[in-house]
Amino acid sequence: MTRSDKMRLGLSTRGIGYHVAAWRHPDVMPGGAESLAFFAENARLAEAGRFDFLFLADGLGIRAHDNPPGSLAHSSENVELEPLTLLSALAALTTRVGLVATASTSYDQPFHVARRFASLDHISGGRAGWNVVTSWSEMEAVNFNREAHFEKGFRYDRASEFVDVVLGLWDSWGEGAFVHDKASGVFYDQAKLKTLHHRGEHFQVRGPLTVSRTPQGRPVIAHAGASEPGRQIGAAHADVYYVNEYDIEKARIFYADIKRRLPAHGRDPNDLKILPGIQVFTGRTAAEAREKFEYLQSLIDPVIGIAVLCNLLGDFSHVDPDGPVPDDIVLTLRTSNADKAIEMARAEKLTVRQLYQRVGGKAGIRQIVGTPEEVVRDMRTWFDAEACDGFNICPAFSPGNVRDFVELIVPELQTRKLFRAEYEGTTLRENLGLPPVKRRA
Amino acid sequence: MTRSDKMRLGLSTRGIGYHVAAWRHPDVMPGGAESLAFFAENARLAEAGRFDFLFLADGLGIRAHDNPPGSLAHSSENVELEPLTLLSALAALTTRVGLVATASTSYDQPFHVARRFASLDHISGGRAGWNVVTSWSEMEAVNFNREAHFEKGFRYDRASEFVDVVLGLWDSWGEGAFVHDKASGVFYDQAKLKTLHHRGEHFQVRGPLTVSRTPQGRPVIAHAGASEPGRQIGAAHADVYYVNEYDIEKARIFYADIKRRLPAHGRDPNDLKILPGIQVFTGRTAAEAREKFEYLQSLIDPVIGIAVLCNLLGDFSHVDPDGPVPDDIVLTLRTSNADKAIEMARAEKLTVRQLYQRVGGKAGIRQIVGTPEEVVRDMRTWFDAEACDGFNICPAFSPGNVRDFVELIVPELQTRKLFRAEYEGTTLRENLGLPPVKRRA
Repeated sequence: MTRSDKMRLGLSTRGIGYHVAAWRHPDVMPGGAESLAFFAENARLAEAGRFDFLFLADGLGIRAHDNPPGSLAHSSENVELEPLTLLSALAALTTRVGLVATASTSYDQPFHVARRFASLDHISGGRAGWNVVTSWSEMEAVNFNREAHFEKGFRYDRASEFVDVVLGLWDSWGEGAFVHDKASGVFYDQAKLKTLHHRGEHFQVRGPLTVSRTPQGRPVIAHAGASEPGRQIGAAHADVYYVNEYDIEKARIFYADIKRRLPAHGRDPNDLKILPGIQVFTGRTAAEAREKFEYLQSLIDPVIGIAVLCNLLGDFSHVDPDGPVPDDIVLTLRTSNADKAIEMARAEKLTVRQLYQRVGGKAGIRQIVGTPEEVVRDMRTWFDAEACDGFNICPAFSPGNVRDFVELIVPELQTRKLFRAEYEGTTLRENLGLPPVKRRA
Repeated sequence: MTRSDKMRLGLSTRGIGYHVAAWRHPDVMPGGAESLAFFAENARLAEAGRFDFLFLADGLGIRAHDNPPGSLAHSSENVELEPLTLLSALAALTTRVGLVATASTSYDQPFHVARRFASLDHISGGRAGWNVVTSWSEMEAVNFNREAHFEKGFRYDRASEFVDVVLGLWDSWGEGAFVHDKASGVFYDQAKLKTLHHRGEHFQVRGPLTVSRTPQGRPVIAHAGASEPGRQIGAAHADVYYVNEYDIEKARIFYADIKRRLPAHGRDPNDLKILPGIQVFTGRTAAEAREKFEYLQSLIDPVIGIAVLCNLLGDFSHVDPDGPVPDDIVLTLRTSNADKAIEMARAEKLTVRQLYQRVGGKAGIRQIVGTPEEVVRDMRTWFDAEACDGFNICPAFSPGNVRDFVELIVPELQTRKLFRAEYEGTTLRENLGLPPVKRRA
């Protein structure tokens, strides 16, 4: 299979937007993060823009520490509808756009997850996707009978077995297993039923799944994460891979690393689509684009800026905002995003304020500010350099920032033949250009 | 509060219908149990008929034993969409009808359940309900890391604490907690946040829930079960109580028992609606109604009849279908439904075939066959005798049997002022005539 000459586009629609000041934007609907009408408008825009899919990130708790005190009450990150419940409602209001939801493997059961996503695939006529994550924060652990989150090795072991069980359950029934022969009374063909009988280290699941083979064969699998165990799961199973990277060279190295792992799993390198997150500010002119960006940045509440650093990195609560990042700052969360932020601050000699403006505003996502021509040139550079197969658009705020992308960037991509003018198929898998799923022996 | 002079009506929409032969009916859509369009038509009918709510029962596995061998492949009970996923899609396609889904307390976590139902309540504008059940079958246990189901005492202890945690999480945020003050940057009022900090025997859940107080205050709670621990949970927490009873006197005793328990929980007896299941066959004439019933009964596959007895009661696989229920039959499942079936068979001296026709066809539900006048007279007798507050309609097959009820029975109930002509409110709670929810101290 040759590499497609078309980009893939996902639209992340977490809450009211990825920018911490999103909720303060005058155009943003108060309570939008819990409103079906709000998400329905995003979905409508995504479909009008021929996006491959809507994507919902997720977390299972609110920030554990109110640091600095009072900052939590200034944050919009506290409420969020359960993603699969929301996507199912959006399935009924859309016809073509894919629907990808996050579900953690750390505090759920494979049978539940397999069943819900298979149900969504049926309900949506083949548009469901599961973003496989592990839960790494204390704020989630404390809602699930624990004091602390599972350590990384355990988490990924569990995740790997969890995915294996889910895939097995999705293969319970063969294509056409349900014959519905009213005359003879035969409802299904016994030869097409495979009971899983899984007995592993973390799970014992007999099966079969109580949902038939889905329109896509199985839902699409998405994954993210730069760590080695994350890459292993992704290379083995993912159809879509999210990544956050600012540097095109690093992105190319990552891209090549993931793609080169695929043949060992019997997969073609084009069977997995790597989509870095970007946040785009655009306008009819460069000045208009810049103005939109600066305006939103100006809405960042300082108490939130410091809180974001406390939450993402470590204790910044007593640090001078206009001084440099102290050498002895205690990093409490060693994630790849945290390392990346500190690396950036040191390399660019940022003050703490500049750091939180950078990190706080965009939530780790690369921002592009410019005219449609400039933005598309940037996107094309990454695409042509094999740094990505497309992008996961993480809007700063919704729906205004989404509308700008759909009205200004998408037509520019289409004119340059970098993006579809019409959906190619009816399922997410078809639109992503992925091969049909084979049932495992 | 005085007892309402109006009945409440729920519409159970499990799969393609409650009758085991439903899928063989010529009007039933093959694959309907996994089709959004199929359920959308049921939902449309329910709303046209001014039903209080749609209800979805659930189970978490397929029958454990294929007894007699081959019977499983003749059963339509093997596939079923996950109910909450389905209801959320239906929320987007309806505006007034309530949406009640079953979720088991045995193999899930309170944080997940609280969040999903709160999300559905937001998405539907205040129409969500949770049917609290425990999982009592081996076929479910084996999909959740166990060899056998939890014993009854443990199950109900866990269920009771589970409900308590869910209610606590739903009270995390007070009314109007989210002030969305864009100018000052204050997103929520800290005084209106209550973190749960639950530490119990089965669960440790810190909270708060990541979903704000819902349009109904909290989702409606439904419950069923005739056992003492079931009645305790129901009297303490349920807004809606399902029951399956054939005998009006027994139903009156049950009704009085549940109602008299309410004051001890600070509740008015009218704060809980008891809804026995019924299955109605009706037509323009008595002969037409009877014909519809007999036709469906004639479609029961004998291998399924025996299998239903094996599944519900014990080993009937080698019993003569035309002989009596043997005295030494080994009952493997001691549930209230099983006891009830055997009691009925002995009292009426049924053959095994007659028993499976009775039990197999209706799945434990009382059947009423007659003209609209006859059916309404029966329903009114139960209602006036304080044997119930209304009914949970369990259609034999969908949508034909639902359409008959909506087109023939509902107008008859409305003419006699026994049922609403229009929805009274916008939320399920308002339509059920329940008082506003108080946030727990």
